[in-house]
Amino acid sequence: MTENTIERVVSPPEEAPVNLALVAGRSIDRPRIATRSEHDLLGEAEIPADAYWGVHTLRAVENFPITGIPIGHFPELVRALVLVKQAAARANRRLGQLPAEKAEAIERACDLIAKDTRFLNQFVVDAVQGGAGTSTNMNANEVVANAALELMGRRRGDYAALHPIDDVNMAQSTNDAYPTALCLALIFASEPLVQALQELAFAFKAKAVEFFDVLKIGRTQLQDAVPMTLGQEFDAYHTTIKEDIDRLREAAALFREVNLGATAIGTGINSDPRYASLAVVELARLSGQPLILAPNLIEATSDMGAFVLFSGVLKRIAVKLSKICNDLRLLASGPRAGFGEIHLPPMQAGSTIMPGKVNPVIPEVVSQVAYLVIGHDLTVTMCAEAGQLQLNAFGPTIGYCILTSLRMLTAAIDTLTRRCVNGIEADRARCLSLVEDSIGLVTALAPVLGYETCSRIARRALDEGRPVAEIILEEHLLTETQLTDVLKLETMTRPSRMAGAVVAKPKE
Amino acid sequence: MTENTIERVVSPPEEAPVNLALVAGRSIDRPRIATRSEHDLLGEAEIPADAYWGVHTLRAVENFPITGIPIGHFPELVRALVLVKQAAARANRRLGQLPAEKAEAIERACDLIAKDTRFLNQFVVDAVQGGAGTSTNMNANEVVANAALELMGRRRGDYAALHPIDDVNMAQSTNDAYPTALCLALIFASEPLVQALQELAFAFKAKAVEFFDVLKIGRTQLQDAVPMTLGQEFDAYHTTIKEDIDRLREAAALFREVNLGATAIGTGINSDPRYASLAVVELARLSGQPLILAPNLIEATSDMGAFVLFSGVLKRIAVKLSKICNDLRLLASGPRAGFGEIHLPPMQAGSTIMPGKVNPVIPEVVSQVAYLVIGHDLTVTMCAEAGQLQLNAFGPTIGYCILTSLRMLTAAIDTLTRRCVNGIEADRARCLSLVEDSIGLVTALAPVLGYETCSRIARRALDEGRPVAEIILEEHLLTETQLTDVLKLETMTRPSRMAGAVVAKPKE
Amino acid sequence: MTENTIERVVSPPEEAPVNLALVAGRSIDRPRIATRSEHDLLGEAEIPADAYWGVHTLRAVENFPITGIPIGHFPELVRALVLVKQAAARANRRLGQLPAEKAEAIERACDLIAKDTRFLNQFVVDAVQGGAGTSTNMNANEVVANAALELMGRRRGDYAALHPIDDVNMAQSTNDAYPTALCLALIFASEPLVQALQELAFAFKAKAVEFFDVLKIGRTQLQDAVPMTLGQEFDAYHTTIKEDIDRLREAAALFREVNLGATAIGTGINSDPRYASLAVVELARLSGQPLILAPNLIEATSDMGAFVLFSGVLKRIAVKLSKICNDLRLLASGPRAGFGEIHLPPMQAGSTIMPGKVNPVIPEVVSQVAYLVIGHDLTVTMCAEAGQLQLNAFGPTIGYCILTSLRMLTAAIDTLTRRCVNGIEADRARCLSLVEDSIGLVTALAPVLGYETCSRIARRALDEGRPVAEIILEEHLLTETQLTDVLKLETMTRPSRMAGAVVAKPKE
Amino acid sequence: MTENTIERVVSPPEEAPVNLALVAGRSIDRPRIATRSEHDLLGEAEIPADAYWGVHTLRAVENFPITGIPIGHFPELVRALVLVKQAAARANRRLGQLPAEKAEAIERACDLIAKDTRFLNQFVVDAVQGGAGTSTNMNANEVVANAALELMGRRRGDYAALHPIDDVNMAQSTNDAYPTALCLALIFASEPLVQALQELAFAFKAKAVEFFDVLKIGRTQLQDAVPMTLGQEFDAYHTTIKEDIDRLREAAALFREVNLGATAIGTGINSDPRYASLAVVELARLSGQPLILAPNLIEATSDMGAFVLFSGVLKRIAVKLSKICNDLRLLASGPRAGFGEIHLPPMQAGSTIMPGKVNPVIPEVVSQVAYLVIGHDLTVTMCAEAGQLQLNAFGPTIGYCILTSLRMLTAAIDTLTRRCVNGIEADRARCLSLVEDSIGLVTALAPVLGYETCSRIARRALDEGRPVAEIILEEHLLTETQLTDVLKLETMTRPSRMAGAVVAKPKE
Repeated sequence: MTENTIERVVSPPEEAPVNLALVAGRSIDRPRIATRSEHDLLGEAEIPADAYWGVHTLRAVENFPITGIPIGHFPELVRALVLVKQAAARANRRLGQLPAEKAEAIERACDLIAKDTRFLNQFVVDAVQGGAGTSTNMNANEVVANAALELMGRRRGDYAALHPIDDVNMAQSTNDAYPTALCLALIFASEPLVQALQELAFAFKAKAVEFFDVLKIGRTQLQDAVPMTLGQEFDAYHTTIKEDIDRLREAAALFREVNLGATAIGTGINSDPRYASLAVVELARLSGQPLILAPNLIEATSDMGAFVLFSGVLKRIAVKLSKICNDLRLLASGPRAGFGEIHLPPMQAGSTIMPGKVNPVIPEVVSQVAYLVIGHDLTVTMCAEAGQLQLNAFGPTIGYCILTSLRMLTAAIDTLTRRCVNGIEADRARCLSLVEDSIGLVTALAPVLGYETCSRIARRALDEGRPVAEIILEEHLLTETQLTDVLKLETMTRPSRMAGAVVAKPKE
Repeated sequence: MTENTIERVVSPPEEAPVNLALVAGRSIDRPRIATRSEHDLLGEAEIPADAYWGVHTLRAVENFPITGIPIGHFPELVRALVLVKQAAARANRRLGQLPAEKAEAIERACDLIAKDTRFLNQFVVDAVQGGAGTSTNMNANEVVANAALELMGRRRGDYAALHPIDDVNMAQSTNDAYPTALCLALIFASEPLVQALQELAFAFKAKAVEFFDVLKIGRTQLQDAVPMTLGQEFDAYHTTIKEDIDRLREAAALFREVNLGATAIGTGINSDPRYASLAVVELARLSGQPLILAPNLIEATSDMGAFVLFSGVLKRIAVKLSKICNDLRLLASGPRAGFGEIHLPPMQAGSTIMPGKVNPVIPEVVSQVAYLVIGHDLTVTMCAEAGQLQLNAFGPTIGYCILTSLRMLTAAIDTLTRRCVNGIEADRARCLSLVEDSIGLVTALAPVLGYETCSRIARRALDEGRPVAEIILEEHLLTETQLTDVLKLETMTRPSRMAGAVVAKPKE
Repeated sequence: MTENTIERVVSPPEEAPVNLALVAGRSIDRPRIATRSEHDLLGEAEIPADAYWGVHTLRAVENFPITGIPIGHFPELVRALVLVKQAAARANRRLGQLPAEKAEAIERACDLIAKDTRFLNQFVVDAVQGGAGTSTNMNANEVVANAALELMGRRRGDYAALHPIDDVNMAQSTNDAYPTALCLALIFASEPLVQALQELAFAFKAKAVEFFDVLKIGRTQLQDAVPMTLGQEFDAYHTTIKEDIDRLREAAALFREVNLGATAIGTGINSDPRYASLAVVELARLSGQPLILAPNLIEATSDMGAFVLFSGVLKRIAVKLSKICNDLRLLASGPRAGFGEIHLPPMQAGSTIMPGKVNPVIPEVVSQVAYLVIGHDLTVTMCAEAGQLQLNAFGPTIGYCILTSLRMLTAAIDTLTRRCVNGIEADRARCLSLVEDSIGLVTALAPVLGYETCSRIARRALDEGRPVAEIILEEHLLTETQLTDVLKLETMTRPSRMAGAVVAKPKE
Repeated sequence: MTENTIERVVSPPEEAPVNLALVAGRSIDRPRIATRSEHDLLGEAEIPADAYWGVHTLRAVENFPITGIPIGHFPELVRALVLVKQAAARANRRLGQLPAEKAEAIERACDLIAKDTRFLNQFVVDAVQGGAGTSTNMNANEVVANAALELMGRRRGDYAALHPIDDVNMAQSTNDAYPTALCLALIFASEPLVQALQELAFAFKAKAVEFFDVLKIGRTQLQDAVPMTLGQEFDAYHTTIKEDIDRLREAAALFREVNLGATAIGTGINSDPRYASLAVVELARLSGQPLILAPNLIEATSDMGAFVLFSGVLKRIAVKLSKICNDLRLLASGPRAGFGEIHLPPMQAGSTIMPGKVNPVIPEVVSQVAYLVIGHDLTVTMCAEAGQLQLNAFGPTIGYCILTSLRMLTAAIDTLTRRCVNGIEADRARCLSLVEDSIGLVTALAPVLGYETCSRIARRALDEGRPVAEIILEEHLLTETQLTDVLKLETMTRPSRMAGAVVAKPKE
């Protein structure tokens, strides 16, 4: 092999996993490329000629080389930002503030960017940034402005013809445009999670049906308890996931109240009194989502309550998923020295040293995602708590955490449904033998024999390693017929103690 | 002074802050006191003759010397436990399972305990305990049984006449009785918090009215922004607290779905098929709270989702309160080298070394309570995540954390309303002088002069230490009349940019 | 039974678990009791005549009715506070600032309070309080002053003779006296935790020795892995606890650097240049603890780094304890449908419905304590992060959380050692049968037969429900002698693959 | 503009921010490309012919489409993994287990991969994965094996000649190779953070020197306290960062104890008794890092204590950085309606609506990174707590969180140093005017006039809006000379109260 061979093979450019230039803090403005000149309050700067973003974006890229994950990594956010720009342009046009030609160019540019994923790589500001989202908003303003300029037949950077701030950002502040876009993005990004949860719930239901007659021992505190069916166990997972879908939708509905029109601090400075309502109506129309204007715009501008609550619901989903996945790992423990009641489908070799070992890798990755989501929830909490006066400056990290949590949860649930739950099989023989052998059966006798007698029998069975039934009969506490009647496994899996029990309580 | 004097003074027994005997792990069973004998699967044990609790409680007290805070510290929990016992007794009686005499004695005992706070000290098990609440349930069973025995004219411990488990706990398991009681307790304990929040919201509204005409500078990212009124600022606090009340009520409503009748694992083993519905109806009647039976009792028995979500809402309230309190501290910073826009009522001397210093001690304690609540939320999360199979064994700590958070939040909000918000005063002169001097006024000129021109003016004003207006006039950008028209502070606190603005944009 | 009987029985005053008067926000100043008058900047107030605390304490009690847990609940903190007062008095006397008579009275009072636990109930300020510890410091100043006044033959409140601030607090600020006391209190309170950890480590070692020859299957990811001994498993617990002791001591050593003498903000205003060093030396002498003066007092006054790190070490201990306790619950799962390798000593009846069920209540309570400690760590983190400029105002909650965590951890570890670990028994027969039946044995053949062959054999064994050895022989991969040689369980529990293995790799 | 223009411009392939193929769960195995066939226990699979990774990696890529961030994103981890493989090969060769030819090829391959960053894109498994790191280890084994095969002149996939598991992974398990590599990676990745912290500390020291004579008011609890210099304030930041460097190094040293040689569960099964020590020595030599073998390999294999503690130290650093950045934002608040004591260098326009507004974007991004790190610490904690028996399955997420935190912290600190601290300027005039006007000066009079008199004066000064000095003179409490002597600002910034004060205490 020559070095050349390796070089050819190992560096296919499309596999560069993250924008390492950003991570390393190196300028994107490489010397060899053509540039145009733009200026801001810090002075002149050279922008790559083919970039749709401009000088404000450049400053942000240089200031925030934090995660290497640009906002373009979140297509829902980009789409939402652009829809906000479009809605504002429509409202401003209707109010006579924005000339028709400019408004049309902005609209066409927004249409294009919202639909064409190739624009995602123009949203280059790091997702974690200072400035309360100003850089994200600036990035959007500049990309829209330059795309609109091109559509107007002008060159990029010709801001005298169409200005990123005076025109594209007209009647907006970052402090209303950005949180409104974030709310909308989260509505968008919640939909795939709802879908994934529904599929998971369905998968559990299908298994509940398949296992409806698999008798097994229930367990509390990891100790053998009383009988149930494996179908009941999986049906509970179905139910619990369905509840989460309801909670998720309720929490996402809080994002339907937006502060567009609040401008700088919620007083609506520099906006027409009719603007806010108009803009929200347009945004609802463009996005196809019901939206309303927050009744108190000053409150809505600094309040992060909806984000905290929504993140709390994601945490709840994470907690439940992790609990379910831990259950699956327990039930599948073994294959011989564990519970061994179910088999998870093997997905990959489990060990580099232990041949044939297959591990519950899918439930494991889901639990880890759960822990990441819980960690993100804490970050969201701290960001929200740190808001000051008329604004919370940490919206970008709140958005980053929740969007990332949504994406990870959706992916993890998908893999759980498809690569684990759908393929679970019951070990019916083992389930039955464990429940038949169980001391927990004595519970069914407690209404007849009393708690204390039953406690004594349970202890004897355990100490002597014998079945409960054998001891009952030996002690003549019940006849064989009576005993059979009470210890019917099927009846133990549902309420069945009738008034006037089938057997009289014998004398003690 | 003699040693005797000190002894007399310093040891009034009623001020012992916690049950130090429990904390130190010392036995409660002191040698000198009269005892009765009880037994369980571990053997015989001596119980103080005058205790209503029995052997199972004793074991728990010995096993869990953790916090020194007994469950009797939470009157809502005790009341809820006893109502569950009463509802079960009623249902069992109607189903013919529990003889009338026993049922009546249990009912009367429950009535007494629920109303008479002197029974609280019979609930001695540590709030943080192993066993999924079994010890709490046992403690309740024993206290009810022994009170009922007394009411029947029998001596405590005469369990042949009325048994704590066979009779008082009939058709129940800890695994349904305890979580049901916890849900009910949290409904009870939420009410004072709602009340406290309403009073706080009202207090903020009253201040909003009082300060409706106090012009001041708004701030974002701690930088001077644009004008608003202090009334608007306080009205936002009013609004945000009102929203929290709604969220709190929605989350508390999740507790109305209970699993009473689930018994051991949700299959309803050892219960009559009609029992669950009957018992829930009785519990709703006794508690005066709407309650329904969970549709899937197996799910409901292990699921902690409602607790996680409710705790998440408490966390949200905490986050917002802390943000508000930090704002109050910022606005009151000074008295001379800070913002100094408001004065908090002095509540105590602020320093042992700096005479006359008065600190914002009430907002500070509220923020600390917020951080405690957020810490508790994490504990709740971890407890919930650690559930296994048919049960979550960590309900007691979930209950402890949420009940403690509710109590602390309620107390902190009360002290905030009464000892801080109600007494806040505005420094009108300072508010006005800061806003008049502000560079943020230039924002109102941006629609007229454009973003870039205004940026330049702002920078000049700052560099030269001069008012914005002066520079505008000097540069002949606007006439004095035009300027006065735009820079009217009052109009800057609401949307006011009309189509066809009052001034024509001058040439640049 | 009459109501009177109940009244007599249920209200023994010494069992009042917390100071309910404080919780309810009711004034301590009950009308009937004798009072003395004191004043502060808010005016006059009536103090119970027999109280050692004074007006500043009263204000704080009224302002902070938060947890009902007074600082007197933490004897280490009270002792440390008083030692700081004593050390300061000695230093001030040596510098000629404090007259001998006053200094002596203060010293004697401090001696008395530090040793006599009956003074604890004079430390009545709520542990969670605003004001950066000023109220705690004031409470200490007042109790010391009044005790000293009595010892001088004067009446309480005669502050012209000895002043709580001018004399007892001389050359101190809350901002140095309080954090110094807190550091010292944490050093004191760490000692019982170290002791508890050592006993737990010893208990695990004793079990490791007892179980040194109990062969069993090791498990990774809840799947059967390769053989080990139960002794090895418990010896790992011993080792891991021992490491925690080292980490705990290292972290506690950070508290030996104190800021006494920093006064208000670290500049040492109002103190003699020699004072700080003198005071620290005296404090070290009085406490018997090595202490040094922080080299940068301004940094030391606002920095909470040592608390964050120490709390992080408690979190680490909590994480490990919880992991160990989860292991114990897994290993003891069953008794028949679980792993069943060990038996935990039964500590109480496990269920109110399932007779004979015994649950792992001690490991469960330890895990819950772990989650509480982790929650407290978050609270500490948020308090620390919220410090501003020259001070962190949230020291009281930091102290409350860490002191409570220390207490709970110590208690939980004690109960774990005594009520669980010491009584653990191995089920030798089950351990052996599970390992002999295990597919994991195939691992030992991988160096001989290769990973892929062994994977195939493992899968066949599992699918056909047969022992691994049987298949090896059937496939003539090894002779019986060779096989016996490799599959010796004992040799599989330690490194044993010699160069030139005992068996030649057969052809495939 | 044509669509073509846009297409050309917006899709430069090298800017694809993350591996979207992975995120979307799409197979990497695109139909058009050449493939080779490999098999595992799940059967045959097609691998891209030019991939160095193999079938086990493929399974993992398909199973874990979670974050889109592959392990190749962490060069330190890749380097560490490869060094482990190299060390193992050396040890195995010395023990006669691995033929020289194979060992040499492995060594050369490892050398190449460790140095040539173009191999990073062959490490394609998602950083968040189930299976305890098995997939990461498999990925490394396969890349090393195939690179070695090429260097041996053979084709990729020719595992009969050199096997990824039997040869490259010889005497290793994921359970020792992976945590060892992770420890080493964290040692590597800590170095840039130490470097960044040192530069930040130096920057603060430089500012401390620059501002040594800038008198200003100190503040506690946001209330004006007593004088200090701005130099003292910045010197405290220097000191606190220096302490963090020490703590970071101490915590990183815990990673020097590795479990290489533990194999599957710590018993060293399938390894030569001499192997562990040899392998660790080789790893130390290859990495240039001091490393030792853990004394108890069973404990070391499941214990995550070092990760928890190290993450706790990162949390501490985060807490301190955030506190400092909040301070900077407070001190720079204004420009006119805030504290305004310092000016941060402007880094970008601060607002899209408020011209000229400049925000503290760099401190803001640092605080957000701090919150992300604290969130990650929680994730690490939960992962560590969830370990079971002989292994913690969640090492990959622990690694992901800590490595990401290290990277973000390093980047954030760099940007803080270069783009903020280095350019901070003092507003000397404002600092001086605020301190001269301060009521806190009265503190210096307390030793002379007593706490209560000074409290009264402070209150009068505040109420009447007058300077403290004026009132002192008006009340004839001190002469002008005496007053000037005490109120010397410079002397108030250090301990200066001499025995026998300069002024006699006047009568009250």
